[in-house]
Formats: sequence, C-alpha cells, structure tokens
Amino acid sequence: MSSLDNRFVFPVSDKVKEEVLKQDVWSVFSPSSGHVPKDSINLGQGFMNWKPPNYILKAVEEAINIVETNHYSVPKGRARLRNALAKFFSASFGRQLDPENEIVVTAGANEGMYAFEAAFLQQDDEVILFEPFFDQYLCNTTFQGGVPVYVPMTPPANAKTAVSSSSEWKVDIGKLRAAITPKTKMIVVNTPHNPIGKVFDADELRAIGKVAEEFNLLICADEVYESLTFDKEHIRIAALDEFWGRTLTIGSAGKSFSATGWRIGWCIGPAHLVKPTLAATTRIVYAVNSPLQEATAVGFEDANKERYFSTQIEEYIERRAILCEALDKLGLSYTVPDGAYFILLQNERIQLPRDFVVPDLVKHRPKDWHISWFLAQTIGVVAIPASEFYCAEHKDIGANFTRLSFCKDVDTLRAASKRLMDLKPYLA
Amino acid sequence: MSSLDNRFVFPVSDKVKEEVLKQDVWSVFSPSSGHVPKDSINLGQGFMNWKPPNYILKAVEEAINIVETNHYSVPKGRARLRNALAKFFSASFGRQLDPENEIVVTAGANEGMYAFEAAFLQQDDEVILFEPFFDQYLCNTTFQGGVPVYVPMTPPANAKTAVSSSSEWKVDIGKLRAAITPKTKMIVVNTPHNPIGKVFDADELRAIGKVAEEFNLLICADEVYESLTFDKEHIRIAALDEFWGRTLTIGSAGKSFSATGWRIGWCIGPAHLVKPTLAATTRIVYAVNSPLQEATAVGFEDANKERYFSTQIEEYIERRAILCEALDKLGLSYTVPDGAYFILLQNERIQLPRDFVVPDLVKHRPKDWHISWFLAQTIGVVAIPASEFYCAEHKDIGANFTRLSFCKDVDTLRAASKRLMDLKPYLA
Ligand SMILES: Cc1ncc(COP(=O)(O)O)c(C=O)c1O
Ligand SMILES: Cc1ncc(COP(=O)(O)O)c(C=O)c1O
Repeated sequence: MSSLDNRFVFPVSDKVKEEVLKQDVWSVFSPSSGHVPKDSINLGQGFMNWKPPNYILKAVEEAINIVETNHYSVPKGRARLRNALAKFFSASFGRQLDPENEIVVTAGANEGMYAFEAAFLQQDDEVILFEPFFDQYLCNTTFQGGVPVYVPMTPPANAKTAVSSSSEWKVDIGKLRAAITPKTKMIVVNTPHNPIGKVFDADELRAIGKVAEEFNLLICADEVYESLTFDKEHIRIAALDEFWGRTLTIGSAGKSFSATGWRIGWCIGPAHLVKPTLAATTRIVYAVNSPLQEATAVGFEDANKERYFSTQIEEYIERRAILCEALDKLGLSYTVPDGAYFILLQNERIQLPRDFVVPDLVKHRPKDWHISWFLAQTIGVVAIPASEFYCAEHKDIGANFTRLSFCKDVDTLRAASKRLMDLKPYLA
Repeated sequence: MSSLDNRFVFPVSDKVKEEVLKQDVWSVFSPSSGHVPKDSINLGQGFMNWKPPNYILKAVEEAINIVETNHYSVPKGRARLRNALAKFFSASFGRQLDPENEIVVTAGANEGMYAFEAAFLQQDDEVILFEPFFDQYLCNTTFQGGVPVYVPMTPPANAKTAVSSSSEWKVDIGKLRAAITPKTKMIVVNTPHNPIGKVFDADELRAIGKVAEEFNLLICADEVYESLTFDKEHIRIAALDEFWGRTLTIGSAGKSFSATGWRIGWCIGPAHLVKPTLAATTRIVYAVNSPLQEATAVGFEDANKERYFSTQIEEYIERRAILCEALDKLGLSYTVPDGAYFILLQNERIQLPRDFVVPDLVKHRPKDWHISWFLAQTIGVVAIPASEFYCAEHKDIGANFTRLSFCKDVDTLRAASKRLMDLKPYLA
C-alpha cells in the first residue's frame, strides 16, 4: 500500500510539521549517515570514541545481576542515584540538597528540559534562547505550545582575524531586556556552552539572573558539561544570590561519564520546580532505565577515589591542544573553549573550489553547510555547520563558524589534524 | 527558603496541574511506598520478581564492552534491534516489515504512545479509550492538548456471582459509535488487555477497525502483552483487513523479556505513521539507551533457539493457576485472563470490619481503595484498586474490582495465596 493511498492521509500535528520535513544536521554529517564517506573522521556529533570508565561498567554488570535493578524504578529516580547526586553536588550548589524533593532523574538531559518546560509553559509562553543554542531547545519549547525568542550572543570583534577566547563571546543584557515581553516565562542558560565552549563567569550569570528576578522568570540552567572546564571554574547560577528559587539545573551522565547512549540525566532545584517536573516526566517516560541509573550512582560514589573527573579534565586539555595546534598551523581563526568539548572554527578563509559540486541536500543551505560538505568529502573530516544553532533570521551569523568536537582519543585527533593540513590550498 | 516565599510562585501548566496534586495509585500501593507494610506481598504494580533471561543479560555485558553501544544510537533505534524486530514480527503482521521505515524504538511503550499522540493530535482532538484503561493513556492524550473520551466495556453479566472469562468483557460498538464526534482522531485498543486479561478476537477487532475506517480514525494498538497469551492466539488489528494503513502497534521489552526497568519499547506501522512518530520521539528523548537496545535485539534473535517465549507462557499458566486456585478456595468471583498477567477480582463479597480505619489518603477514594488498603494492612497482600482505570464518572463500575498481578514466582504466589485465606472471616 502506498502512502499516497488517499484513504490513509493523516495530517500531522503542528508540533512535528516542520520536523517531519527537515533533514536534520546530525543525520547528514555523520559517517554512518550514508551521506559522507564512511572512512571520514568524525568530529561531528558530540560522543566519545571510548567506553565509560571500567569501574562504572563493572557496576552495570552488578546491577543486571540483581532482580530489582532490572525492573521499574520510581519515577523520581533510584534512591541510590539521588543520594549520590545530593552528596556529590551539594557543595557546588552551596546548600545541602534534599534527594527526596530537590532531584529528579530523567531520560537524558534532553528529556529533563522537555519535562521542565512541559510542567511550566502555557500556550504561547515565550522562552529566551541565547544563540548559538543546542538545537533541541527549540522543540522542547514548541512541543509545549511555547514560543522561542532568540537573543544572539556577540562574537569576539576580531573573531575573523585572530584566535579568541570563548569568554569573549558576550551576552548583551540590553538585547536580553529588549526581548522580554509579558509572555516571557523562562530563560535558558547553557554553561559550559555548546558550541562556544564559554564558561560563564559570576558577573555574567548575575546579570542574567537579575533580569530573571526583575521579570519573575524561570531559569533553565543547562550544565551538562559541568565536569568539563579547563581554565575556569564552573559556576552555577543556582548557587548565586537568590536565584536557586527560580532555577532548575540540568545534568547528564552522558557527558560526565562518556556514556551518551545511556540516556541518564537529572534536574536539581527547589521542590516547587522539581515536583511539577517530576509530574511531567512520570507521564512522558514513566521512569528511567534502572541498571544504568544504578551504575551512574556508583560513578559519583567512587569518582573521587578513582580521581575520575580530574583525570578526565587533563585528558581533555591534551585533546583540545592537538586540535588547536592543527588550526594554528593552518593560521585559521577559532575560539579556544574554556569548557565542553567543541572548537568553533571561523570558516571565512576556507574557499571552496569554483567547480565544487554539492548535492541538493546541501545546496540551499547556508554556506557553512557547503564547507562541512567539502570538509567531509574532500578532507575526510566531519564537522557541524554552526548555522544549525541559530534561528532562520540569524543563520548568517552562525554560517561563519564550523564546530569541531574533540571528544575523541588523541590518535583520532592526530589523524584528523593531519587531514586538516590538506586544507592549505583552499585557504584565502 | 520556603516554597511559600511569594517571590517564587510559578504557576504550573494546565498539563500537570492535576498531576501535581494527586497521589497516584502506584505510589500508595507498593511495599516501598512507606504506606503499606514493608513485608506485604506485592501483587500490585506489574513487574516481575525475577531477572531477564541469562542469554540477554550476557548480551548486556557484551554491549557495554563495545564503545559504540555505550553511545548515542540513531533516534529511530539501533539497526540491529530494528532488524531483529522486523524478522521476528513480520509473520504475525502478515507482511514483510521494513526496518528502515516501519519501526521506531522508543523509551518504553509508554513514550512510544506519547510520541504517536504528539505527532498526530491537534488541540482539542479526541481520543477514545475503552474502560478500564492503562492509566498512562490519559496524559498521553491531555499533554498534547487532546481530550480523552471514555467508552466503558461491559463486564460479564454474572461477574458478581461466578468466575467468568475475560472474553466475556465486551466492547459495545453502539457505545463506541455514539462516542465519536467530528473531533475524534484516534482509538486506543489494548490487547491482551490490562487489567482485564482479555485477548480480543478477530471479529471484535474487525468491528472496531470498521468504525475507525468509517470515520477515518487512527488506531493505537497497545500490544505490550503480545507474548503472553494462554488459551487464545494474539491477533493484531494491524494484520486484519486494511487496518494496517491507520494503525501503529506498540510493543515493550519490559513485558516481553521481564525487564520492565530497561525502558525499551517500539512502534510498528506504515511509514506515514512511523515517520511523524520518529520526529516526535527525536525531540522528546532524542534516542533510547543503547546497551539495553542491543541486548533486546539478542532477545529476539535467539528467542526461538532458547525456546524463550513458549517456556515463558507455560510458566505464566502455572502462576495463574496458583492464584485462581486460592480465589476458588475462597469462593470469590473473578475474571480468568486469556492473556497478560492480571486477575480482576470481583470484590463485593469482601466486607471490611465496621471499625476498620483508613487514613485520609484513602478515605475519600472509592471503596476499592478501602479494600486494597485492608488487603495490604490486614492480609499482607498488595493489590490495585481498579477504579483507577476508569474516569471520574465511571469509577463506580471499576470500584467493584481489584487487580492482582501474577508476574511473581510460584513461591511468592503460594505465600500470597496462603495469606489470602485470612480473608475468609471477611467474606459476606
Ligand atoms: C548543551 C547540551 N544540552 C543537553 C544535551 C543533551 O544531553 P543528553 O544526551 O543527556 O540528553 C546536549 C547534548 O549534546 C548538549 O550539548
Ligand atoms: C497496557 C499497557 N501498556 C503500556 C505499558 C507500558 O509499558 P512500558 O513499561 O514499556 O512503558 C503498560 C505497563 O504496565 C501496560 O500495562
């Protein structure tokens, strides 16, 4: 039976109308997509090419050999994980976290944010997103009938001509205030930031928090890269001033323990934000997978003993250095990240050959899509066009940048660096 | 800071307004809830007190020792699992399933249904639910702005005085037709049925399907208990007549492999239903946990070699017999299930002592809540009040029934049976 059989025409909801049509960036720029060479080196989507640490894998084996840890957990998450999170994170929140009422485990950070927005957004409520933004934020908002409002961050003045620090990307508080309307309900703040790598400092967070206070807005603090800061300390907006009362902080085992496919996330905040978020997640996924929750608990319980997070930071500093060195050799401009695992390459010097042909899939997209296509096909390195992290009106800002991930082992990064040298003939 | 601090009053969305207030049945009637005695025997929520089969647990160990199976899967689900599902289920659908376009893996069956409704419901669209119904159906609909419309099934005429078959519970097609309005978009059909245990026969499914055809409705076929039928064959509505074109069929590894805590589900249907559902699930959870997907694939690949499903059915028949025998000894009326793992006890003969005190939590609930409270506190057996599976207006029908689960090992069921004998003095 063909889909065109007109007995079976079911119009899709407004929510997914655009989603169904669009070819998302992740299913184009991935070596397994069929669109780019299978042997290209994947500096695209942010997952690691190594396993989670052995002490956690051992905990998975233990968990699956116990009856209960194969069965439903309570919707708020396994007690062991909530206790481990409370113990590990209380200090950084500057308060004793209550594992019963101030923590909810979710099916990845993504579903946590989705549930938070489901719990608090009414039809037409507005959510402020700073650009560039993690692309899932968009539907987290629109699926609830909410409306995203975009505030572009200001790139470093000399981004085109010099290597700059991620801290030079700035939130313009004037633009933020100008974006607020009576419908504004929430501001999403992502630190450490994907794709910039910016680690917001206390003054910046305070400035945002004060605006939230003035207009009585919720804050969604996406801190999934909290354990990955290199030169600066991670600061939580929830730990500053009185912002705790309006902030839900989101974390992810995927990023913390190199386990992006485990789909374990969590939300931490005051009971009056956690309880409605729990009510929402209970109805969306009911509960989160049990064995990997249990293993994540062990991840935190034994992290200090294993020197896990400090070692991980050292390793990422080395990985970052390899990729920066390659870009330096090419004399390209880019943003040095203070956290997370992305480098934003300023791509304006890359000149595609006049006769370079891109397929229809890419043709009508901004020029960074063309550059990513060229990088994949000709250089053999997969990278993500940053215009994807901007709304339609602002894609021209993002199109000057290309995101490279360095959550790959040093051999892979060295091999990618070597391939990148083939860019030389194409640099203006 | 107190939640009453009026600087931090954030009204919750309409979606969760009632959810936040209510104490759901699962967090009352569970030995770990703190509400019922810790040593009560749990015939409440439907999870098993044994592990998934060893051949699958071995597959988990293998999966976590491979890099990729710890990282993001593609949103539609791991190829290995989709291939295994296509191979295992094509025959029962009466067609060659296309693993690329006709299957999507979801974070449990629950999230699959949620995503399907997110993909197709517009504000105020109506979804028909037959009562009694699995309680999650409600919010799957309301969270999308949809409206549930309830059609009670007709209990056996002699339910009160005799043991009856689950096949005697009937859908009244007249009532179904009467419930349809221009806003009706979908009918949810659950077979094998929770909590009745009814396995719908082809004529019943055809009658429902014809109505769906006449009014051009979608069908959500919740078949999570497909592998658990005892005396009757499971028939898929999607395999009858031309219903495939309007039906999405939902399955669950939790029920199939005794792994309720793994949160692996799937949706099978025509591409024009699967693609929008995939678009929705991609934005809700992004992807499903990878290692347990991989192990579920092995579950299906090796099921026949392991004689897994046929052995499982034999075991459940034995379990069902133990509980039925106990109820027979008490002379109680109940429904003998043809599938799934629930027995609906007709509770009208149970007379609570006049001076029996129930807490506030239970006091204002229908009488089956009082009976479940009594069963837990006095008899030491946890069971679920069936009024929970009915809407407010029809709770009086459900209040005559109490649901007992037999997804417990024979020793537990024997111990529960023994305790149930203590009911004798309380039977009218
Ligand atoms: C900024 C940001 N937030 C959230 C997520 C989602 O995390 P998870 O995989 O736990 O859903 C990502 C993943 O890439 C991310 O980059
Ligand atoms: C009828 C029915 N549908 C769906 C589900 C949910 O299945 P899962 O645990 O895979 O989300 C259940 C679980 O009890 C159920 O009884």
